[in-house]
Amino acid sequence: MSYFDAASAAPLHPVARQALLAALDDGWADPSRLYREGRKARMLLDAAREAAAEAVGCRADELTFTPSGTRAVHTGMAGALAGRRRVGRHLIVSAVEHSSVLHSAEVFEAEGGQVTQVPVERTGAVEVASYASALRPDTALACLQSANHEVGTVQPVAAVAEACRAAGVPLLVDAAQSLGWGRVEGDWSLLTASAHKWGGPSGVGLLVVRKGVRFAAQGAVDERESGRAPGFENLPAIVAAAASLRAVRAEAEQEAVRLRELTARIRARVPESVPDVEVVGDAERRLPGIVTFSCLYVDGETLLHELDREGFSVSSGSSCTSSTLTPSHVLKAMGVLSEGNVRVSLPAGTAEGDVERFLEVLPRVVAGVREKLGAPVPTAAVPQAEEVVVDSLGKRCPIPVIELAKVIGTVPVGGRVRVLSDDEAARLDIPAWCEMRGQEYEGEEKAERGTAYLVRRVS
Amino acid sequence: MSYFDAASAAPLHPVARQALLAALDDGWADPSRLYREGRKARMLLDAAREAAAEAVGCRADELTFTPSGTRAVHTGMAGALAGRRRVGRHLIVSAVEHSSVLHSAEVFEAEGGQVTQVPVERTGAVEVASYASALRPDTALACLQSANHEVGTVQPVAAVAEACRAAGVPLLVDAAQSLGWGRVEGDWSLLTASAHKWGGPSGVGLLVVRKGVRFAAQGAVDERESGRAPGFENLPAIVAAAASLRAVRAEAEQEAVRLRELTARIRARVPESVPDVEVVGDAERRLPGIVTFSCLYVDGETLLHELDREGFSVSSGSSCTSSTLTPSHVLKAMGVLSEGNVRVSLPAGTAEGDVERFLEVLPRVVAGVREKLGAPVPTAAVPQAEEVVVDSLGKRCPIPVIELAKVIGTVPVGGRVRVLSDDEAARLDIPAWCEMRGQEYEGEEKAERGTAYLVRRVS
Repeated sequence: MSYFDAASAAPLHPVARQALLAALDDGWADPSRLYREGRKARMLLDAAREAAAEAVGCRADELTFTPSGTRAVHTGMAGALAGRRRVGRHLIVSAVEHSSVLHSAEVFEAEGGQVTQVPVERTGAVEVASYASALRPDTALACLQSANHEVGTVQPVAAVAEACRAAGVPLLVDAAQSLGWGRVEGDWSLLTASAHKWGGPSGVGLLVVRKGVRFAAQGAVDERESGRAPGFENLPAIVAAAASLRAVRAEAEQEAVRLRELTARIRARVPESVPDVEVVGDAERRLPGIVTFSCLYVDGETLLHELDREGFSVSSGSSCTSSTLTPSHVLKAMGVLSEGNVRVSLPAGTAEGDVERFLEVLPRVVAGVREKLGAPVPTAAVPQAEEVVVDSLGKRCPIPVIELAKVIGTVPVGGRVRVLSDDEAARLDIPAWCEMRGQEYEGEEKAERGTAYLVRRVS
Repeated sequence: MSYFDAASAAPLHPVARQALLAALDDGWADPSRLYREGRKARMLLDAAREAAAEAVGCRADELTFTPSGTRAVHTGMAGALAGRRRVGRHLIVSAVEHSSVLHSAEVFEAEGGQVTQVPVERTGAVEVASYASALRPDTALACLQSANHEVGTVQPVAAVAEACRAAGVPLLVDAAQSLGWGRVEGDWSLLTASAHKWGGPSGVGLLVVRKGVRFAAQGAVDERESGRAPGFENLPAIVAAAASLRAVRAEAEQEAVRLRELTARIRARVPESVPDVEVVGDAERRLPGIVTFSCLYVDGETLLHELDREGFSVSSGSSCTSSTLTPSHVLKAMGVLSEGNVRVSLPAGTAEGDVERFLEVLPRVVAGVREKLGAPVPTAAVPQAEEVVVDSLGKRCPIPVIELAKVIGTVPVGGRVRVLSDDEAARLDIPAWCEMRGQEYEGEEKAERGTAYLVRRVS
């Protein structure tokens, strides 16, 4: 078994397990009580807060433990937006934030707020100038992840924080994917993270609110966690989270070098061994352990299933692996191919041999899926008509692209293929196919049913 | 060490510990993923939900795991109130609910809702007729705890549920204190509970919403837990919570009999061995493990401290042990003495010998605290004036009552003592003292500073 989905949840670090066990004995009582069991619990909680704050680079009284990274984001955004309600009702997020940020933005919009989504480049990174230009006098809050969870691209947080600081706008950084690797640089105002992403237990998130940032906790609260995270503290897990963050950080520098080399290997060798693949995300400014690529003419769910049979656990941003039937919003915002998408995210300690075995197995697995789906093989087709219509209505990713690829040779250079599709993934994948194949994407038109995507053959 | 504060947090049940350890190995991955680690996690989550639902007496798809009992209450109340917004904006709670219910009610009121607090009898129970009379055509939700967390009194939930059902109003039952002992009877609509109250781990609450109950989750949500509890599931703790609920239930019947006898012993013997004590809460309709009493002329914080030194961990609803400087809202609503308040809540498995030792130690500890505070000793004082004024301004509980007791003998029968006090606890404790001492409480008046409490000597 090779578990390559650390970006979803990292396996529990041995130190986390150890600390959790110890804290089960000493940290089950209510830390707000005055008797000895309560005092013991309070000491553990205080020590965990100190340790986590040190790792984050903040004061202990700026750090709150929440029940998850998602809850940290929800609480942090709602509190910061409410705290600056008088300044205005404008929120900035990047287009590739984690769903918890985008869900909070939706709620804010539904309540009358205005949201600007800053687009990203094809690498997945925001441009600093583009982000800065979204800042307005009525901007209450800006959000930017430290690094992207699907493609690993590192965001220019320090520069964006500087622009926000100059405009007097607090910046919330979702550091879920990067905090185990190191502190977030720059002069940010709020920060969120999630313990199970760095090898800590589930059930613990971090919310940091710098002194001086206006913050008004929303909904019902109580006296716990400075009135920012109501409910009995999940103390054994908090202790384990703090201890493992420390442990992970001690190993981070060395492990980052090692994983970076392994993911670089995947970045380089997959396109060599698998035809029609697009490796996505920034090749340089990226997290050590994440590499993402998409395979033309492949159905993501089948691919994941076949890789699972071979002993590899990976995830995918393809539409066919999600319940919403839309491709990942991250791949969409980047404008890259979503079909046959695979995210490999290596946990700390991944053995080189496992990566080598993955590189060995992948070409065969992809070829097998393509064969099943009837993916096109290059043939010298004779051009037959100036315009061909492909009716892919009712067919799901990757079929529309496969059918497009099969007919492109039947129109002469200069001729056109019109693909009719009602699959949301086609909007992303047909232009991406054109870019990969050197054909011209002319745009889309509303059709009687679904959408017509127009492709001109240029080679 | 005798830990007698199970109503705050019960020590971890051995089965919870065992299940938690096992689930750390098999339940750390994301249960929404398709690969084997994800499928394993999903199976554990599904099995835990089935087990918890069986214990509650509901369908598995009606039960959501939340990060705590407090969050279950916040989410449940907000969702139910929003789901019936069109019916009206009226909420009913009892006066003795857990703070999480009252905090949610405050938020609802701040947003324009109307809240009716149903008073309780001196036992701590609501009267069914009184609760039913609070129901209105615009009532969106009614809340009633299954049993009180401070005094152990069991509420008439089944009868109140019937009245609510007849009025078409959903009833939310906070079952935090009772779920380990058995299912909540009656036709309730929503139910909340907290695992660490029954010996499960911290970090897990239950929210049950019966099919057909209108419910609109508030704030940002995601695809987890039916859209009712966002954020990565705290799976090992959930597994441990469900397993321990089952285990605790298997032992409940027998253990209830045993603990009920031990608390009955405390109820009977404390008033015999400690002078000037009021045992509060219903003597019959009560939880097996909780017994609460208040000691005149005693400062709760010192008493707790001294009991801790003797090896007993208990809690108190006295004003002097809380950060708000007001006595417990439960004791206040019951109209009973709050000074020198002690809640003993025995965890399952409490040894008889520990209770006996507590009964042995208590009289000496209380006497010691009273001596330090200069509590009054009965003397044959000679009446000096028809009215005596006691200036207790700036003095905190229990001093005003001690000073009242010291001078009552200096006025003749028919004479009056006027106690000036600015301590919030005096409002509760002076009438309670009169009731215990057979003196007449004539009421309060606004004084130049603080409040004047008027006591007529009748014996």
